[in-house]
Amino acid sequence: MSETNSQTPCRYPTPDPADLGALPDDVRQRILEVQEKAGFVPNVFLALARRPDEFRAFLAYHDALLLRESGLSKGEREMIIVATSGANQCLYCVVAHGAILRVYEKAPRLADQLATNYRKADITPRQHAMLDFALKVCLRSAEVGEDDYSALHAHGFDDEDIWDITSITALFGLSNRLANTISLRPNDEFYLLGRLPRPAKP
Amino acid sequence: MSETNSQTPCRYPTPDPADLGALPDDVRQRILEVQEKAGFVPNVFLALARRPDEFRAFLAYHDALLLRESGLSKGEREMIIVATSGANQCLYCVVAHGAILRVYEKAPRLADQLATNYRKADITPRQHAMLDFALKVCLRSAEVGEDDYSALHAHGFDDEDIWDITSITALFGLSNRLANTISLRPNDEFYLLGRLPRPAKP
Amino acid sequence: MSETNSQTPCRYPTPDPADLGALPDDVRQRILEVQEKAGFVPNVFLALARRPDEFRAFLAYHDALLLRESGLSKGEREMIIVATSGANQCLYCVVAHGAILRVYEKAPRLADQLATNYRKADITPRQHAMLDFALKVCLRSAEVGEDDYSALHAHGFDDEDIWDITSITALFGLSNRLANTISLRPNDEFYLLGRLPRPAKP
Amino acid sequence: MSETNSQTPCRYPTPDPADLGALPDDVRQRILEVQEKAGFVPNVFLALARRPDEFRAFLAYHDALLLRESGLSKGEREMIIVATSGANQCLYCVVAHGAILRVYEKAPRLADQLATNYRKADITPRQHAMLDFALKVCLRSAEVGEDDYSALHAHGFDDEDIWDITSITALFGLSNRLANTISLRPNDEFYLLGRLPRPAKP
Amino acid sequence: MSETNSQTPCRYPTPDPADLGALPDDVRQRILEVQEKAGFVPNVFLALARRPDEFRAFLAYHDALLLRESGLSKGEREMIIVATSGANQCLYCVVAHGAILRVYEKAPRLADQLATNYRKADITPRQHAMLDFALKVCLRSAEVGEDDYSALHAHGFDDEDIWDITSITALFGLSNRLANTISLRPNDEFYLLGRLPRPAKP
Amino acid sequence: MSETNSQTPCRYPTPDPADLGALPDDVRQRILEVQEKAGFVPNVFLALARRPDEFRAFLAYHDALLLRESGLSKGEREMIIVATSGANQCLYCVVAHGAILRVYEKAPRLADQLATNYRKADITPRQHAMLDFALKVCLRSAEVGEDDYSALHAHGFDDEDIWDITSITALFGLSNRLANTISLRPNDEFYLLGRLPRPAKP
Repeated sequence: MSETNSQTPCRYPTPDPADLGALPDDVRQRILEVQEKAGFVPNVFLALARRPDEFRAFLAYHDALLLRESGLSKGEREMIIVATSGANQCLYCVVAHGAILRVYEKAPRLADQLATNYRKADITPRQHAMLDFALKVCLRSAEVGEDDYSALHAHGFDDEDIWDITSITALFGLSNRLANTISLRPNDEFYLLGRLPRPAKP
Repeated sequence: MSETNSQTPCRYPTPDPADLGALPDDVRQRILEVQEKAGFVPNVFLALARRPDEFRAFLAYHDALLLRESGLSKGEREMIIVATSGANQCLYCVVAHGAILRVYEKAPRLADQLATNYRKADITPRQHAMLDFALKVCLRSAEVGEDDYSALHAHGFDDEDIWDITSITALFGLSNRLANTISLRPNDEFYLLGRLPRPAKP
Repeated sequence: MSETNSQTPCRYPTPDPADLGALPDDVRQRILEVQEKAGFVPNVFLALARRPDEFRAFLAYHDALLLRESGLSKGEREMIIVATSGANQCLYCVVAHGAILRVYEKAPRLADQLATNYRKADITPRQHAMLDFALKVCLRSAEVGEDDYSALHAHGFDDEDIWDITSITALFGLSNRLANTISLRPNDEFYLLGRLPRPAKP
Repeated sequence: MSETNSQTPCRYPTPDPADLGALPDDVRQRILEVQEKAGFVPNVFLALARRPDEFRAFLAYHDALLLRESGLSKGEREMIIVATSGANQCLYCVVAHGAILRVYEKAPRLADQLATNYRKADITPRQHAMLDFALKVCLRSAEVGEDDYSALHAHGFDDEDIWDITSITALFGLSNRLANTISLRPNDEFYLLGRLPRPAKP
Repeated sequence: MSETNSQTPCRYPTPDPADLGALPDDVRQRILEVQEKAGFVPNVFLALARRPDEFRAFLAYHDALLLRESGLSKGEREMIIVATSGANQCLYCVVAHGAILRVYEKAPRLADQLATNYRKADITPRQHAMLDFALKVCLRSAEVGEDDYSALHAHGFDDEDIWDITSITALFGLSNRLANTISLRPNDEFYLLGRLPRPAKP
Repeated sequence: MSETNSQTPCRYPTPDPADLGALPDDVRQRILEVQEKAGFVPNVFLALARRPDEFRAFLAYHDALLLRESGLSKGEREMIIVATSGANQCLYCVVAHGAILRVYEKAPRLADQLATNYRKADITPRQHAMLDFALKVCLRSAEVGEDDYSALHAHGFDDEDIWDITSITALFGLSNRLANTISLRPNDEFYLLGRLPRPAKP
């Protein structure tokens, strides 16, 4: 039996999700909201809560990019996160955002495809071009040039969409580096989320 | 809805699993056996069946390494396959052998961990060392030397175990390159296999 | 004469620094403060001001990491930014934070050394170790492990310091990717800042 | 004098070529055949003979790919082996298959060219395209796509030829990794084979 | 204060610039000439003077390439040196030749741009193409082919210009490797040279 | 038959070895000397003769490093050239200096070993350490540090020997880049030189 590691959220001590009383009100409130919605507290919230100012800043950036009106659907934004997190070998983001992607797209196999090799995924040519760009920003941003912009324009992306692709890639590049370094552990619940068909409503 | 790609097993024409009559007897027999056991025909069997001699040779090598007595458990051999296939970005092998690993180890989250970053997986230090060696064989075999052997001896692996680690890595490096190039598609069934607890027996 | 390119702050349209009236009050206020202090508006402020929510989030993260009490001096935090931005080939951050580093450390040559090859810079062994860690987070974060933590503990860094090193590296990795992709141009003023001795006070 | 290393075939104990009696009949038979033909026993046969099932599987795969009817000449198949083994820095395969290539192509300099840099070798544009594809399968198989197939179609290769190129590359990638890890030593005889013009028949 | 390292020119003992009497006449003469012109002795002269034959050979090669009539201006030749030395992370050459470039081109910001990321520098498209070629020679010379020549011909470079680009890149690749290995230290004077406008003549 | 390429010495026009009258006296003299000694004119002499000043400078550097008294034997200096030229994939230098190495060391197989993977070559541990250092200078000179020097001191190399290793690596890095870019072709004679035992003297 190989799953014997400690189950702490990360390498650093984190608040006990059953006792968040010592946290600032807004931080605790945000954690309770996500817990209400997801049924559990994603470990990234506990890890960042160690540092309330960074917690607030990260989530503000996250919300600014993932909740805004955009030419990218919410599912497409998660595709970017999963594919670039795969390239950065970030277990937390691959598993947690893989779950969100499956739920958004009702596509139970898509996250595994994107995390492994987006070129073989069940996506449209437009989404393939989007991920070509995202991976270049992720891995070789110094080489991005006008030709890369043109390739996306040809698929109907405008410059604001490209800013979104770039910034989402960049923000989760931040998150990948932090999660890798602190060994942030995905909650067990994420692994299975969105893999099963929703039961029919009665 | 993003899952609209064709569902053919790979880029090349393959035998129809419902009509295997044109295949040589031994090839058909082996396919029927795996179908009986798994409930479906894994696409790699259909892809290789295009070339019966290669089908036989690949499976002979596969069986020689995965069925033999070894200092590595069957689960550990699958760990090597999943971790190195992740490094080679091979969707078929990550998904298909990920399923087998989950079943063998009764560890529903282990395959996702190994395919993304084996350093963060719920494995023993001995298994971590085994994968350090396997990844070096996979990615930089020209640099393997006696120090790498010694690191495994320190964990109780003997030279025959190391031959197994090396050859399994090498065989699935073959399989990764072929699967990537022919766009071998994992059967849908693999994605969920081993993720759910077995129902209790009545 | 080779310097004939356009002098716009970046590839995207940005607010005119002489007419910031259309910006939200807090954004305009922050820009006026930095202008007051520096004598000009750093282009990153204009580029981010296109998206006020991202402006606020980035600066909140920036302030959380660079203004907090830490085992790292302010100069050391800028060393991390300059060395990792050099590795990411980010012109804006190398030039702008190079200027800040020169001013903080009163070290007119240090930024050029760190951006080119930190191993040859005029820094202490402790700072060299700090940058070894930062560069690993920057370039190979999936491989960071306990040995890397131990190497910093040996130089007196504690885990909170290491979180700072990691998060600063990660935040400027975000900023490097965005700046590279939008071709963010360093203000001309940065190139010379901190290179000349301050005139003696009368 | 620098050639003082031990002359054993590889890092593992191997059967004595002068006393093969302990080997299974088919394995011994195959070894005697190659010895009859070549005048010596290539070390790879001795190394694999330690494990008869792997010996049989490897040679079955080898024969399936190298003896079959194909749009690739036998010399072209050896070109693929030599060029990709060079990229994998596999001494055994570069030297042994370099010898075979020289003999097949009656081209005493071709193997050294291909092992060092196939772009500078005395080959046709069609063979150059074949090796472009093989090297991509060897080094970056996850990135192979339809454009790579089209480039070969333009030179008259059909999809079965491309399967051959891929599988030969993949099989010798297996062999390169094994040979590198076990330090398989090329027999001295290989180094000179095919370098001298055959003496004229009387 | 972080600038406390020793200030010796390099890791090896070097002649004292105030006492060059032990050097061969031609070597001393050349050093005195550059000192006369620059106002100081660049450290590379002291390092190479340890080995007069290498001193003479390096400078002969240097002069042959940098003083000859060419389709490349002197400033363009320094652009190649600065951009490729940046890619090789050579502190001495980035700083020393950055200074020379600033003086030649009267462009105080150009060297910092080229050393960090030539794609973002204030140069012409022709110079951008020149540096694309130089960087390929610097980093992946085995892959240079006729297409790379054609790309330069399209910008008006002829084959002799391309020989110059190649040889300058190659010579400073030599110099970068030596300077990195012996930790050759740029003279403090170089850092500021060419950054300030020349005072108006009275 | 695959060897149908043109047989010109390189991509550029070169002097006809049968008519060297137009060359400067010293250049022609040097060429005649090497022709006398080798029985043919190595193509690098013809390529460099296009530019007499570069011809003289290159050969002066070459002689300074390869003819001087040194703690490295002449054979060891050629080992460095062959191993690093292999890493740079330079056909001319691998083949030409491989020949010289075989002759110097009377080791007919050593050059093929070193060009492919020096870790598997028949050399002493001291020579292995020498090549570890040389390959690091060749491929990652920015990372060379005191630990690398210490590793060589432990094998009895002194700092002057290390300067030799470094400079030889650097000079042939120059030569590799030039030869690759101009497609310098090894003379046919080199391929076989030193592979056959010298006939016994009568």
